Amino acid sequence: MLRIAVIGAGRIGKVHAATVAAHPQARLVLVCDPFIEAAKALAEPLGARASADAAEAFSADDVDAVVIGSPTPLHAEHVLAAARAGKAALCEKPVASSVEAARALADELATFEHPPVMVGFQRRYDPSIAKAQQLAAEGRIGRIEQLTIVSRDPAPPSAEYLAQSGGVFKDMTIHDFDEARFFLGEIVSVNAIGQKLDPALADVDDFDGAVTTLRAASGAVAIIKNTRHCASGYDQKVEVFGSEGEIVADNLRATSVQVNDATGSAQQEVYLDFFLERYADAYRDELTAFIDAVNNGSPVTPTVEDGVAALVLAEAAERSARSGQTVEVTK
Amino acid sequence: MLRIAVIGAGRIGKVHAATVAAHPQARLVLVCDPFIEAAKALAEPLGARASADAAEAFSADDVDAVVIGSPTPLHAEHVLAAARAGKAALCEKPVASSVEAARALADELATFEHPPVMVGFQRRYDPSIAKAQQLAAEGRIGRIEQLTIVSRDPAPPSAEYLAQSGGVFKDMTIHDFDEARFFLGEIVSVNAIGQKLDPALADVDDFDGAVTTLRAASGAVAIIKNTRHCASGYDQKVEVFGSEGEIVADNLRATSVQVNDATGSAQQEVYLDFFLERYADAYRDELTAFIDAVNNGSPVTPTVEDGVAALVLAEAAERSARSGQTVEVTK
Amino acid sequence: MLRIAVIGAGRIGKVHAATVAAHPQARLVLVCDPFIEAAKALAEPLGARASADAAEAFSADDVDAVVIGSPTPLHAEHVLAAARAGKAALCEKPVASSVEAARALADELATFEHPPVMVGFQRRYDPSIAKAQQLAAEGRIGRIEQLTIVSRDPAPPSAEYLAQSGGVFKDMTIHDFDEARFFLGEIVSVNAIGQKLDPALADVDDFDGAVTTLRAASGAVAIIKNTRHCASGYDQKVEVFGSEGEIVADNLRATSVQVNDATGSAQQEVYLDFFLERYADAYRDELTAFIDAVNNGSPVTPTVEDGVAALVLAEAAERSARSGQTVEVTK
Amino acid sequence: MLRIAVIGAGRIGKVHAATVAAHPQARLVLVCDPFIEAAKALAEPLGARASADAAEAFSADDVDAVVIGSPTPLHAEHVLAAARAGKAALCEKPVASSVEAARALADELATFEHPPVMVGFQRRYDPSIAKAQQLAAEGRIGRIEQLTIVSRDPAPPSAEYLAQSGGVFKDMTIHDFDEARFFLGEIVSVNAIGQKLDPALADVDDFDGAVTTLRAASGAVAIIKNTRHCASGYDQKVEVFGSEGEIVADNLRATSVQVNDATGSAQQEVYLDFFLERYADAYRDELTAFIDAVNNGSPVTPTVEDGVAALVLAEAAERSARSGQTVEVTK
Repeated sequence: MLRIAVIGAGRIGKVHAATVAAHPQARLVLVCDPFIEAAKALAEPLGARASADAAEAFSADDVDAVVIGSPTPLHAEHVLAAARAGKAALCEKPVASSVEAARALADELATFEHPPVMVGFQRRYDPSIAKAQQLAAEGRIGRIEQLTIVSRDPAPPSAEYLAQSGGVFKDMTIHDFDEARFFLGEIVSVNAIGQKLDPALADVDDFDGAVTTLRAASGAVAIIKNTRHCASGYDQKVEVFGSEGEIVADNLRATSVQVNDATGSAQQEVYLDFFLERYADAYRDELTAFIDAVNNGSPVTPTVEDGVAALVLAEAAERSARSGQTVEVTK
Repeated sequence: MLRIAVIGAGRIGKVHAATVAAHPQARLVLVCDPFIEAAKALAEPLGARASADAAEAFSADDVDAVVIGSPTPLHAEHVLAAARAGKAALCEKPVASSVEAARALADELATFEHPPVMVGFQRRYDPSIAKAQQLAAEGRIGRIEQLTIVSRDPAPPSAEYLAQSGGVFKDMTIHDFDEARFFLGEIVSVNAIGQKLDPALADVDDFDGAVTTLRAASGAVAIIKNTRHCASGYDQKVEVFGSEGEIVADNLRATSVQVNDATGSAQQEVYLDFFLERYADAYRDELTAFIDAVNNGSPVTPTVEDGVAALVLAEAAERSARSGQTVEVTK
Repeated sequence: MLRIAVIGAGRIGKVHAATVAAHPQARLVLVCDPFIEAAKALAEPLGARASADAAEAFSADDVDAVVIGSPTPLHAEHVLAAARAGKAALCEKPVASSVEAARALADELATFEHPPVMVGFQRRYDPSIAKAQQLAAEGRIGRIEQLTIVSRDPAPPSAEYLAQSGGVFKDMTIHDFDEARFFLGEIVSVNAIGQKLDPALADVDDFDGAVTTLRAASGAVAIIKNTRHCASGYDQKVEVFGSEGEIVADNLRATSVQVNDATGSAQQEVYLDFFLERYADAYRDELTAFIDAVNNGSPVTPTVEDGVAALVLAEAAERSARSGQTVEVTK
Repeated sequence: MLRIAVIGAGRIGKVHAATVAAHPQARLVLVCDPFIEAAKALAEPLGARASADAAEAFSADDVDAVVIGSPTPLHAEHVLAAARAGKAALCEKPVASSVEAARALADELATFEHPPVMVGFQRRYDPSIAKAQQLAAEGRIGRIEQLTIVSRDPAPPSAEYLAQSGGVFKDMTIHDFDEARFFLGEIVSVNAIGQKLDPALADVDDFDGAVTTLRAASGAVAIIKNTRHCASGYDQKVEVFGSEGEIVADNLRATSVQVNDATGSAQQEVYLDFFLERYADAYRDELTAFIDAVNNGSPVTPTVEDGVAALVLAEAAERSARSGQTVEVTK
């Protein structure tokens, strides 16, 4: 039983706390949030204690590992504190607010021995995406030539959220950048077209849609299609085209029900609503892999270096979208 | 060029006349219908002549073959007249109004030499159904165990049509009986449950829905699902389950368009509306096979004997539905 | 927290014990099995105690409810013991080995006050099947006319299992009978065609395939297609055809991966392997409903009466398949 | 009956000649090709005469219109000759080898009165693509935001063909550029990533794959995915994403057959092999529209101006792929 503290009782903290509580190899012992009422409301029904101070997660003797769901600007600090306290850490994306900060974290972590640190790009553990990647890596479709990632939120977040999100590329596309790297490895250039599509978001200084193309060192190209809304739900799809075939990880629905009537045939349900539903299995399998890395020393993936690499692409995409030109990526 | 006369300028006659006119190896020379205006309206735009008298089709020197789309009670007479005149015949289903009449026709045809006589169960030539049957016959799914035929009209015919249709089993299920034999060969017993489902047809002395099960000599079972209406169009589907897999010939749509929106995802169009659209390719390929039988002596399928066999099943189904009991089929 | 004992540490007992252990509103306290090593092996990793004696489940003060997964001949005895001890019971299907025994149980239960007794037809709680039934019940497709249930095992059980299974209709189709009643209500007649398809099972005195048709009091007809094997997995599908449309609850796959290559396109994975995988969510939601009935007095479904009704249909089907004739069902 | 001459007896000339011969409102009277044996081989079975000299198509009194399938460098000359001779012209794509030549043609055509001139971007007449465009234009999915065109050949053409093809953008993507304009209207910038993927084509000075993104004046973005090979056939798909939904025109298969077996489920056939099969209906409907423009003065689409615009995009894409930078498009 890995004894786990969750830092942050917000939306993503709730996901992780519930996932830990239900996991047969983990026990939730602590939830930390400066808003103590939120911490208690989350911890108590799950049989854990609450604290207003994240420091307790690092000092408590009955905590083996921390799951970090604090605000992005605190991620690096919390990861370092955990590592220094000898606790394993699973940190939500992005690992820091900037490439600079993320690199500083990676450099600092390299200076001492510490338990595993894993970054929360949960899509690598989604059963469908993981299966697609595995088949592709095994050569099921020959050499990979073109990768298409569709990632659309069901509805835009609030204007307040957007104002502090760091921009669509760091907030949303960051998952797609990691996913592209998961399939294609090293990326050498980025071209992004930012779109202002939604009249309701016209005043926000951010794109609400984007088409980003990445060239990989292998010669393959990735296409990422993002929008902040999608009428049929949380659109999460990947297509891997290769010299001998194509693998698609399609969207998921809550049930397998289809309807045939006067308006159409083979009509399926809309997609699962959002990441809590769509990636419930991914969060669970991510936690399993984290536990396995802590307990058995299995390799950590994705690493802090992967977190840095995704941020490099996000910053390159932002520059490309602002300048209108392709940006070369230096490691 | 096979020179063809079409007898009957009704709905099915129009299908055949247009199919003949467009066929690269056939020429439409004559359309016969006692309602001469209908014959002319069909013949003239297609460059053929019209006659009020079917006898002209048998006597004309420039006619090599006749396609018989006359009312069912005249089928046997027209087939015999064609055969005696040395003209090949493609006769619409059912080949006669009763097993007795159909057997008499078959017996009579057996007494003299004549060109090919083919029965118009066009589904055997539908590209999807034919492909399914071919794969099954080749052993693609091992031994065939259960066959399901779905056959639903988009909307019921008029009460007048129903009153003289001969009943749902001879009028509609007859195609399914032939299709079952196409896949399974000899049938040994029939159980039919007739349904009176549609309040608008409550006064018609006929079933408007039926579930019929057939046992084949091989041990396989066929299930036929019929209704006189279907909200999503002309539902024509077959599923062949075998020891090593299943083959499905699914419905067809006019286009491959799908829609994802707030009401659903992967929503396809309704099915093609009715037999003219659904079986356009089948009528063409049926005609090609007929021409090939006439010109090259390739085997005729389906034969008059197949027409008799389908009627035997239709009459057995009617008895089963009326009595509530399973009916053994004797050849 | 409902404190639950599971009786039986076999295949289905394992499913229930794991489901109870993972349920946020339940606690597994006891596993009973005369083979004490099996009981211990199941109980201990889940934090429960084991007993060789089912009687402990009825006498223990810390047990609120029992889940009965004992051999079928013991079901009635265990249900009665639980009810008399004031413990709620969730009993696996079939509720008894015969209609006679099941009716005796129901009659006895009617003579005294007891906590809820629920029968384990878990399909009523499968999210896809439940959604289909709900839509149909709400009138989404008008009046229900024809129902098709496909239920195929991935591979036949052992000859030993088959020898004591009670026959395919009580062992396997029993779920389909309940499902047909779930959609259609009262059934008035049964026709079953038993098949001996699998050469490997030729010596077993049981059918290894069957096509069963049921007439409902409403006029609707249900078709049940069973086989003891299916190349592409555990085939569990239902189609509800109505006057205004059709609802299908299709098979489930482990992932949404599809492959396009030189052998085909849109190729999906095989179906989930067997009932543990296919109905994992159903077992969980069934347990939730059971807990809700115990804690909040919500209506129990399916009831022991439903268990009797399914057995009536199973025995009628056996008689029909043996006699070749349709069997009327009296309540 | 529109009397038509076809110029060119190569692959595309054969398509057009057969389409004209089968069209109920057209008659094929002449096929011209300097290789007179090819012209005869095509013309005679279709009941037309042959000539080695394209000039006959323009001078013959019994020719109302010409379909131009000559080599690209001759297109402009043949279009002009037809127009000057008072014959309508349907010219294959691209309308000329360069923007410069195409503009010169358009300018020249503007100086005199002539019958309709139509450019052969047949996809606008494909039933599925046309339906998708119509639905999108009607507002079925709100404002159009992102368009994805997948266009993959089943197998690369010969090295000889590639050497004189004008490059992938003018030879292959040209159809996609027109399709993007069909959905999105005016395009303002182009970014193309050229790929050299196929080792067998390493020595050809051309890309064998490309990912091209287009920004439309409306703010929408189009993504075009090209490869010169595709294991599952001729991959021709379009996805239109809008503020209120998405429309997909999926690939077509020869039949609706699906297979479920131990290797997978819902396995469909590979896509139709190549443009002759995939766009057979489109060529027919294109011809119908051309005839309608000639006979009834209905608007011509696509026009020579559309042909120029597609070439502008092709040349911009070539520059972008060679330079690595985005290219603004000036009209």
